[in-house]
Amino acid sequence: MSIHLRRDLDAIRQDLQGLAGLVETAIYKSIRALTERDADLAKAVIDGDKAIDAEENHIDEECLKVLALHQPVAVDLRLIASAMMIVVDLERMGDLAEEIAERAVHLASRPPLAIPDDIIGMTDLSISMVKQSLEAFIGVDAEMARRIIRMDDGVNELNNRLIAHILNQMRTNPAQLEENLSLFSVIRCIERIADHATNIAEDVCYLVEGEIVRHTDRAQSLGRSRNRSLRSTS
Amino acid sequence: MSIHLRRDLDAIRQDLQGLAGLVETAIYKSIRALTERDADLAKAVIDGDKAIDAEENHIDEECLKVLALHQPVAVDLRLIASAMMIVVDLERMGDLAEEIAERAVHLASRPPLAIPDDIIGMTDLSISMVKQSLEAFIGVDAEMARRIIRMDDGVNELNNRLIAHILNQMRTNPAQLEENLSLFSVIRCIERIADHATNIAEDVCYLVEGEIVRHTDRAQSLGRSRNRSLRSTS
Repeated sequence: MSIHLRRDLDAIRQDLQGLAGLVETAIYKSIRALTERDADLAKAVIDGDKAIDAEENHIDEECLKVLALHQPVAVDLRLIASAMMIVVDLERMGDLAEEIAERAVHLASRPPLAIPDDIIGMTDLSISMVKQSLEAFIGVDAEMARRIIRMDDGVNELNNRLIAHILNQMRTNPAQLEENLSLFSVIRCIERIADHATNIAEDVCYLVEGEIVRHTDRAQSLGRSRNRSLRSTS
Repeated sequence: MSIHLRRDLDAIRQDLQGLAGLVETAIYKSIRALTERDADLAKAVIDGDKAIDAEENHIDEECLKVLALHQPVAVDLRLIASAMMIVVDLERMGDLAEEIAERAVHLASRPPLAIPDDIIGMTDLSISMVKQSLEAFIGVDAEMARRIIRMDDGVNELNNRLIAHILNQMRTNPAQLEENLSLFSVIRCIERIADHATNIAEDVCYLVEGEIVRHTDRAQSLGRSRNRSLRSTS
């Protein structure tokens, strides 16, 4: 590999990690804005999405430049292809954080709604999946990627528990139907963030093994249910 | 351009159109299964998602092969990059059709729920956006792509009307809370299908003009609200 190609690939890896950092912070802040009824913090997340979008466009352009300039093959080509997939997943997580922040602004303007602790647990687990999926990509670590794919089961369990909680709240507290529908949307967003982290982990498996893990029986053998073995329903 | 490259690019275009056809049919059938309470049809959509996933993997591999074999530059490189983005959007629409089908299976097992006509209107509009976005890609037609981006406003209007309808149903018919929450999920799926079609239209603008339309002020000037100018919140 030429020194120039190595340098450009390193820059793309670093840019992706920087983008992941922005996205993790946005997710964390959007949920803090929700639990603390902090509309200003939520609005800061919404404004911050522009920086995430700009970084996505920047990394896309860098990847295309590397393809055009160096015309990489084999593992380097797979690295670029993976990076282009990962940047889409990260940017969509940023959009989901923005959507959570929009719900937080709405909920802060309404009578207070108790936020179940499981939302914090589900968020922490999802952010951890995002962080680790990028580490697995940087370290080209398929073992770690497989562990992340299995973590999605924990997210699904919390998701099911939270949906049961919300249905119960809707039944017993019909005055807050609209607030609970907003909370339902938030939970779906967190679930989809974890799905995107799973996509990244699958891309790492592909990068390492040159074989597409998504949608295959192999993904199922990792202990994921049929539905979870799909790419995010985004 | 070499004859071989031209032939391979044509094959990718045709494969994408074939995949779009599979996805359009899946969306159409999933909504028919919902309105006709046809659990068997819904299960056929769920089973059919495997073919969509297999076709996604096939097109991904074809794109990487073309990159490695022909090392295209300029507009041909952008064509491959666009195709790789479009295939992700199409596959996710397939997942969304599967999610709608899962809700249809659930709803067919519960006391009947009136399905508002706006759901059909919203689905027809979204499928039309999918179909036209692929035509715009094949015809490399930025004007058509811009029209498709504007169509998303109509989808958002129907979406807002349907959410108001569901909240009203939840208030007046608390016995069917769970059914209405399922219907809410279906509506979110259709909205996201239209978002993915919008993404494809934006990729066509990029292909034609070599400029990334996503997230830019230009996207806003097309008449889309700030939120709609983002990539799908998937």
